[in-house]
Amino acid sequence: MPKIFLLLILCLFWLSPVSAAPIAIVIHGGAGTIVKKNMTPEVETAYREALAESVQRGYAVLKAGGTSREAVIAAIRFMEDSPLFNAGKGAVFTHAGHVEMDASIMEGNGLNAGAVASTTRTRNPITLADAILEHSPHVMLVGSGAEEFAQEQGLTQVDNSYFHTERRKKALQRAIARERGAVLSEDADDTAEIVKDKKGTVGAVALDSAGNIAAGTSTGGMTNKRYGRVGDSPIIGAGTYADNALCGISATGHGEYFIRAVVAYDICARVKYQNLTLQEAADAVVQDRLVKMGANGGIIGLDPAGNIIYSFNSAGMYRASVNTDGDLQVGIYKED
Amino acid sequence: MPKIFLLLILCLFWLSPVSAAPIAIVIHGGAGTIVKKNMTPEVETAYREALAESVQRGYAVLKAGGTSREAVIAAIRFMEDSPLFNAGKGAVFTHAGHVEMDASIMEGNGLNAGAVASTTRTRNPITLADAILEHSPHVMLVGSGAEEFAQEQGLTQVDNSYFHTERRKKALQRAIARERGAVLSEDADDTAEIVKDKKGTVGAVALDSAGNIAAGTSTGGMTNKRYGRVGDSPIIGAGTYADNALCGISATGHGEYFIRAVVAYDICARVKYQNLTLQEAADAVVQDRLVKMGANGGIIGLDPAGNIIYSFNSAGMYRASVNTDGDLQVGIYKED
Repeated sequence: MPKIFLLLILCLFWLSPVSAAPIAIVIHGGAGTIVKKNMTPEVETAYREALAESVQRGYAVLKAGGTSREAVIAAIRFMEDSPLFNAGKGAVFTHAGHVEMDASIMEGNGLNAGAVASTTRTRNPITLADAILEHSPHVMLVGSGAEEFAQEQGLTQVDNSYFHTERRKKALQRAIARERGAVLSEDADDTAEIVKDKKGTVGAVALDSAGNIAAGTSTGGMTNKRYGRVGDSPIIGAGTYADNALCGISATGHGEYFIRAVVAYDICARVKYQNLTLQEAADAVVQDRLVKMGANGGIIGLDPAGNIIYSFNSAGMYRASVNTDGDLQVGIYKED
Repeated sequence: MPKIFLLLILCLFWLSPVSAAPIAIVIHGGAGTIVKKNMTPEVETAYREALAESVQRGYAVLKAGGTSREAVIAAIRFMEDSPLFNAGKGAVFTHAGHVEMDASIMEGNGLNAGAVASTTRTRNPITLADAILEHSPHVMLVGSGAEEFAQEQGLTQVDNSYFHTERRKKALQRAIARERGAVLSEDADDTAEIVKDKKGTVGAVALDSAGNIAAGTSTGGMTNKRYGRVGDSPIIGAGTYADNALCGISATGHGEYFIRAVVAYDICARVKYQNLTLQEAADAVVQDRLVKMGANGGIIGLDPAGNIIYSFNSAGMYRASVNTDGDLQVGIYKED
């Protein structure tokens, strides 16, 4: 009889969450000059709540046995739908006064990827990147062609005005005024315009119970951008990379530098070729290489064991995670 | 008196080309199923002559003290203007029956880069990529916005029909017929349609006497492409990369795989982190990693000493080079 009890206890251990395959997720809502003195308690609370909600939506997908790709999409969709972040609704305005968005997604199992640049009518750009990954022989589609594909795939289309918010409109007006030589006082800033760097991004990286890593990034780009400018977010290797054996990375920052430094892939390459931990590799790129280039921003990531990492050289980065123990963390400033 | 002669001889050695800073250039005109049995002597001669002319134009720039960027542009412009290559005039047709081109350029000194995707009216896409590098705060512009920038920069604009050739039109018709289930005999192939892979690219990498490496790539993409598809050519890190300390690379092949494998940067990263020679690094990526992914294509490159390398896993690659000794080489097949 005691032997049976022992067996039962062993079985319970076997089935307990501790021994289950690890799941984890990490998200960001952009990096930049985010400092406490510019933040009202109400705005800070709104951001913390939105970040927690986003990461929990992704985590719920993983917990229910969903894939890391589905989790990444759930987390990013929430931020795209929230007016707080520079992606989807609430994305920044181009010089011409409308919204053009970029997004990408990659899965570490098989290195499949989908990316879209300069989309203007698809409600959730991350779902368009995902449809490209899943249903197109191509990796990257741009502009009206991408929109045509989105329609054929039955993705929700909206008028560009859906994405517009008063806050971003003001940011454009201020950017244009500055360009024309106006000197605007700090006080004249919209209090909600916390990230003064006029750019931002959202992203998510997840590990599912099958051991698959996925990473995604979505953005409205830079306020006052012109000429069909594309940043690093839809560039596989720069803004997004995932490889089950190494890493998942989503980046946010001054995209031009992130493209030139091939940030996401460089971090994974250092893990692969230099045997660094993901945190060491990320710090080498973000705190050293990018700093030397004069580039501002950060990254989130996780490794194949589900260890969550952040690295940013800006004052702050909106971020949240649920680790392999199920613990939720939300952060904005360096000291968080 | 004999001492003066000795001094004179030493001075001559000092000034001789052997002791001058090395200059070198390598170009490609696309990789694919290029086999001798499908090639007429006339077509082969036309390609060999065009490759030699292109690389010599670039070399002349270097010889005259021009920069590696200027040399890369001179070589690529020639191939863009030639109907033989899938770039500029002679680029492949999209499904919609017009031509959409991508290009990028990067300089290894400072890691500056410019890239354009889906341009339709700028006569030489490589000059647009270069104007973005030089005159825009951005790295990548796409579509009509890029075209607007090109006009502002005074780059020659042409009607899309300028790029059209009968050979590429037929290739589109055949691709569409195949898509609709038609079984086309080998014999029905246009004899000039040597590269059956319906894609191709041109590229150049050069080292100038100041020790600066530049790399550039230009393409019409894939025959029958849809939805604003963008391949690896305009993706910094995938189709093009240059870093004075490591490498210059231009790639050609199945762009979707080249994006997912971050081919150009991965080669440079292996040199940096694994201390491989550029040839070893290129072979590891092209002959091993890409082969395992099922990806067809190749790369050209050179290292900071001006050593020229090729690596391709396809039957052939149009290529030419002038090495640091001034020797011209032209190749098409593996055995060349």
